[in-house]
Order: sequence, then structure tokens, then C-alpha cells
Amino acid sequence: MEINVPEVKIPRIVIIGCGFGGLELVKALRNVDVQIVLIDKNNYHTFQPLLYQVATAGLEADSIAYPIRQIFKQRNNFHFRWGTVEKVIPEQNKIVTSIGELKYDHLVIATGSTTNFFGNKDFEQLGMPMKNLVEALNLRSLILQNFEKALLTTDTRELEALMTVVVVGAGPTGVELAGAICELKKHVLPHDYPELDFRKMRVILVENGDCVLQPMSETSRVKARNYLEQLGCEVWLNTGVTKYDGMVVETKNGKQLLTSNFIWTAGVKGVIVDGLKTEVINSKQRFLIDEYCLIKGCENIYAIGDVACMVTEKYPNGHPQVAPVAMQQAQLVGKNIRNSFSKKALSKFEYFDKGTMATIGRNRAVVEAGKIKFGGFTGWFSWMALHLMLLVGFRNKIIVFINWLWNYLNYDRTIRLIVRPFIRKGKTE
Amino acid sequence: MEINVPEVKIPRIVIIGCGFGGLELVKALRNVDVQIVLIDKNNYHTFQPLLYQVATAGLEADSIAYPIRQIFKQRNNFHFRWGTVEKVIPEQNKIVTSIGELKYDHLVIATGSTTNFFGNKDFEQLGMPMKNLVEALNLRSLILQNFEKALLTTDTRELEALMTVVVVGAGPTGVELAGAICELKKHVLPHDYPELDFRKMRVILVENGDCVLQPMSETSRVKARNYLEQLGCEVWLNTGVTKYDGMVVETKNGKQLLTSNFIWTAGVKGVIVDGLKTEVINSKQRFLIDEYCLIKGCENIYAIGDVACMVTEKYPNGHPQVAPVAMQQAQLVGKNIRNSFSKKALSKFEYFDKGTMATIGRNRAVVEAGKIKFGGFTGWFSWMALHLMLLVGFRNKIIVFINWLWNYLNYDRTIRLIVRPFIRKGKTE
Repeated sequence: MEINVPEVKIPRIVIIGCGFGGLELVKALRNVDVQIVLIDKNNYHTFQPLLYQVATAGLEADSIAYPIRQIFKQRNNFHFRWGTVEKVIPEQNKIVTSIGELKYDHLVIATGSTTNFFGNKDFEQLGMPMKNLVEALNLRSLILQNFEKALLTTDTRELEALMTVVVVGAGPTGVELAGAICELKKHVLPHDYPELDFRKMRVILVENGDCVLQPMSETSRVKARNYLEQLGCEVWLNTGVTKYDGMVVETKNGKQLLTSNFIWTAGVKGVIVDGLKTEVINSKQRFLIDEYCLIKGCENIYAIGDVACMVTEKYPNGHPQVAPVAMQQAQLVGKNIRNSFSKKALSKFEYFDKGTMATIGRNRAVVEAGKIKFGGFTGWFSWMALHLMLLVGFRNKIIVFINWLWNYLNYDRTIRLIVRPFIRKGKTE
Repeated sequence: MEINVPEVKIPRIVIIGCGFGGLELVKALRNVDVQIVLIDKNNYHTFQPLLYQVATAGLEADSIAYPIRQIFKQRNNFHFRWGTVEKVIPEQNKIVTSIGELKYDHLVIATGSTTNFFGNKDFEQLGMPMKNLVEALNLRSLILQNFEKALLTTDTRELEALMTVVVVGAGPTGVELAGAICELKKHVLPHDYPELDFRKMRVILVENGDCVLQPMSETSRVKARNYLEQLGCEVWLNTGVTKYDGMVVETKNGKQLLTSNFIWTAGVKGVIVDGLKTEVINSKQRFLIDEYCLIKGCENIYAIGDVACMVTEKYPNGHPQVAPVAMQQAQLVGKNIRNSFSKKALSKFEYFDKGTMATIGRNRAVVEAGKIKFGGFTGWFSWMALHLMLLVGFRNKIIVFINWLWNYLNYDRTIRLIVRPFIRKGKTE
């Protein structure tokens, strides 16, 4: 069955995924005479950089998600369809989805990435990932539920496990999440659970490598680590995790930890679409693309963002899997599609790295932009301003701003709701 | 196993449920020398009067829920425990719960009410109730998902079913919900789904009785019905629903309707706790209580609010199942418990009816307080002001106010997110 989309004489661009890449591409194709069909498994765009604040009760889920139809409601020749893509059949220029088949003239795969458990079934089964809204809400519920349980137990080992939070992976997500959990420990949870002794609560950030925030400079890494330790976070570097059974974590260097809160932010892999040759997919599940973002060997199938890997001299393992890469690739693909219609020359992709930043609790952040590096309150304030600016939807900006102001003035995180029955498996796709 | 609660020498009051009744009772017992243990299946209080706005994408779930621990974080001798109560053993003065057993000196059952399907398995299986946050979110997802499906179908009968919303029961919940859905039809959905013909969308409010808002005066009933019809809602009175198979609704007077959106707001029943004699439970699953709110034949077990039924001359079928009754009964029980310690005389319950109100879309509401009756913009504005005032939590008040302002100025409902996989069965308790 064909997906019910109007038949028109202009070319049809099918975009899979409405993350930062897909969203930007639809924008870039404004005023281009094409029909756009956007498919996503959610009917909303998620502002992923703030997921960790949803997971730590600082923001409501709805304030960082925005309905896709709302974003593009003024657009003609734009059609959103809610569904999941099963495979692409390149020889027939069509995709097969949960809601039917669809022909395309150009296909752009912008499906992003998901948590990589590196094949460890226990981690996948028992660890909590945090890559989408539902997972962030599950994580919030898990942490709160474990404190409710801690009140009831008389078993000291169980109490220790319930009051210990282990975050595996000290990339930006792990660092920001660990920082936010430390703030919960410091300002919020002791008021909620006066019967518990919060000197016993531990937040441990475990990292296989020898530093936190590996993509940043040495200065920022050290600063971030200091910030974390000031907040009471234990930072264990050079510590690979080998085993977790729901209670005990074992590490490569022979340490053991009791925890019921095992959070996994140690890696991502691309969300590939079936149907393309295996040679164009690398070990991190990313499509190998050329400098025009075309998948190797394809003439009309692009991949952009986290799911794509463009090997260049400067980036031999592909560009970092961050929003700016996806957005810049989307702009390039949009421009090239437009130029191809007017027979103009196509441009090659060059990544303009605007810098990186990470926030570690109240008044603390690290920021780098080229040679400029700063941190502390200025960094933290810049982080907030930039994220507010980038957030989609004016209502969302207002709501997030008020929550931040509220939380800042009151040392509070008010959204401490256990909203759903706890699903041990965080996966919901 | 005993629930882990500090052993103290003062009397222990166990309260089951933190709705309007339970919450008010904890407040009423401020400065009384008792230990309070409050048990609820959620860790938050839900402001039920605004559930219909969550179901219709006007408010985020988190803005009408408030963490119970946050409300009472300054209180001594107050202990919240998150769990469900399985039964009471009155001879032993204890309750059995999902998290262990607990002794009490006084027990107050404030478990509220749930949807009553009157034993019809099809309605229960296929109808959407709306009595808690998760059900409201499921309803929001259902309606949006059905419009996504409507875009895909080429079957005219299926299209008709997907674009028809049937609300059964014209009490305040049904009326407010139908009004809000009509506003979605008028202002929001046509922008989201320009490919659909919204003249075909129908909202039908079906009521067994001969009027809408039965508890109100004739003037208000007629006004409310007019408001609904002005908004494009079809109001079918004297129309009992006899059958629903997931597609076709059949009514007592032989009518048929195609719908995939079958919303059930036609009745409630008490959420009883097992273990008490069947003679004290009436056909609506309410505990029969005396004028002190003590369950008949019990000396230290009270029931208040929706789950309680006090037969009086003025209210031969018990008081209406509304928040003010629960709150006033809570105040009485609190006062009587305090007085019983100082051997003062106990007071009898007398309900002071402050009036009722219902809002039916933008600028329209009906309000009655004693002999005063009004509606229109004044009614609508009063409704908003009162609900904002009653909402728990200052942050929530601000967020709700901003959403209302935003929605009013922009004719918008921004929270159109399909957040969870659709669970056909709305039940989650």
C-alpha cells in the first residue's frame, strides 16, 4: 500500500527523522519547488541537550518537545507522516514503512543515533539509557522510586545500592547528568527524605578513558572535573565497567560497587535504515558519505548528522555526533538540492566548529569557542542563554526560562513525579 | 513485614489517598500531636478539575500534579509512603499494603472514585476514561493518533470513525471535555491537518438523562447546552448507549454512530478498601458513614470524599462527589480527632455548598453560587481565577497561567504530543 500523499509534478524529497538535521533541512528547502515528506516515529521534535534536566526533575517533558506539525504549519507542499521506516529499496527509489510504501526522488536519512551498549545484554537489560523523552522520564521515575524504596528497607546492602547512583561514561551527557544528580542530592532530596542520611548517598561517574569531556581541551577537562568533585561527585577515570547484575557493578580494575541506579551514557551508534549495502555502514552503524553527504555509491540518497560518517583529513573517524554538524550538513544538502535544479555547481561540506560547552550544576560550566575558553558563572550563563535561544517554540522558551528562574531562586526541582509504572527496560522504540 | 515508620508514643493517624480529602486532612492536623502516615499509589497530588485540559493538549501533565513530599516538607511526624493498600484488618487495627503492614490508631480512607462502566466489559475495554494523569495523556495521544491515521486512510467509513469524537455522559467532566475538543476542531486541528476536511469532524455529547449538567439549575443547563451547540457540538439527550465494538456505537433509541474516539465520562464508583463488612458498602461502592464520617459500626475508621456516602435528609443518596465535600469532611475529621484528645464534644458534618461551575470553551462558562447565577465571559474569568487559586504549588500556578494566556492569545494548544505508545486500555492502576 502506498502512503497517502498528494501526487504532484515537482520532485519529492523524503526525509527520515526530525532531529536537528531533519528539522534544519526542511527549513533549508523553504522556497524550493519540491514536495517534502517528513517521516518520524514521534510527532514531535526533541531538544535533546536538555533531556538530562527532564531526567532530574528540573523541566517538564513537554517543554523540550515541540509538535512537528506546529513548526511547519505555514508550509505548502510539506507533509508530515507519523511512522517508522522499515527499509529502503534503492533500485525502486522507494521506502517501506509501518504505514505503507513511498516513492522518492531524493531520500535523506537523518535518523540520528541511539544508545550503544556494545553488545552487552546485561547493560542493555538493566542499564538506564537517556536518549529520548520516554527514557528521560523513566530515569526520573527510577531514581525517585529507589529513594521511596530506601525508606522501607532495613537491609544495609540494599540501602547502599538504592542510595548510590552510577553514571557510566563521562562525555557531555554523563557529566551534565552527574552534576544535576549531585544538585538533587545537595538541595532537594534531603528535604524530601528527612529520614534518610544523605551523607550515605553517592554519585559516581565512571569513565573508561583518562579524562572527562574528552573532546574538550585539557583546561576545560580539569575544570569540569573540579566542578564535579566540588559538587560531591566521585570521578573514577581509567575504569572500564565489565559487569552489572542489577545490584553489583564490577570494573576492569577489580573494584565493586553496589547500585540500583546504573545509568548508561557511554556511547552511541547510528540508527541505520535497512536495505543499503553493508559496505556503506561502518562499525558504529554510521553510513559512509561523501563530501556532498551522499551515501557512498548512491546518487539520490543522503545521510546527515549522527547516522552519517564523512571521513576527512581533519576528522578521520567522521565528524563529532553533535547537533551543529547535523544542522550544517542539512543546510548543505538543502543548498545542493536547490542548486541541482538550476544546474549550478554543488558545494562540498566543510564543518565550521563553533565550539562546545557543558554545564555542571548551578553557576558552573565550561565553554570553548576556538581559542576562547571560559567557565564559572559566565560560562553557565552563556550556556543557558544559548540553549534558550536554540530551543524550538516560543512557549517552550518561556516555560523553560520560568522553570530555570524558579529552580535557581528556590534551589528546587519541582517536577519530582513518578508518572509511569517503572519500566525496567528503558527502550520504547 | 511492617512498613518502616518511626515508632513514637503519640497516636498514629493513617490516611489512604492524597486527593483533595487526604491533602486537606493532613493540613487540618497541623499542630495536633499525632504521627501521620499518608499512603498513596502516586507520589503526587493530582488537580483533577484540569485533567480535561491535559487531555486536550492545553496543559502539560506536570503543571497540574504536585509532589506530595514537597507539599509537606516542613512537617514533623509526617511520613509519606508510596504504595497501594490491599486490605484493612479492623480487629487488629492494621492495614496490609503492597509495601508491608501498618498499625493505626485512627484510619481515614480517602481513596476517591474511579470510572464506573456499570459492568459493561466492552465499554471498559474499548472506552477511554479520564480520571487520572495517565488516562488523560492516553486520551490526548488517542485523539492525535487517530488524526494521523485519518490522513492515511482511503476508506470512507474508517475516515468517518477517526474524525468522530463521542463523549458519553454530560456531567461537568463530559461537558468541559466536549467543549475543549470543539475548540481543538475550530482553532487547532485544521492547521495541523490541512489535508483533511474538518467540516466532516463531529463532536457528539451523548447523555442518558434529559439535560446536560444535571446538578445545576435549569437556566445553567440551557445556557451550557447553547454554548456547546454554538461551538459545534451535537448534544444528544435521552440517549442511552447500549453497545460499542471499537467502531460502531449503538444507542437505546436505535441510532448508530461510527467512532474510534469513544470517551467514557458517564459515571464513577468509589475505590473501596477490602476488609470491611459488605453491609457498609453501597451499590456505588461507597462506604456508608455517620455524621462524624465514621464508617458505620467502626470506632476509628473514617471515610471521606467520593468514597464515602453520608445519607442525610437533604442528601438521601449521599453528598455530591466533588472536591468541596471531601475537603469539608477532612476539616471536620481533623477537628474531631483534635477535640477527641482534649475530650471536647465532637461536631457533626454539615455541607456548605459554595456552588458549582463549568467552563465550555473560550469566554464561556456557567457559574452558580446559591441564588447567584451567571455565565459568559464573567463566568469564564471567575472559573479561571478560582482554579488558579486552588491549584497546589506556586510554580504550577505560574506555568498554568502562562499556558492559559498563551492559548488565549494564540488560539493555540501547543502540547500536541503523542508521548507514549498508545495503550488501548486506559487503566493503569
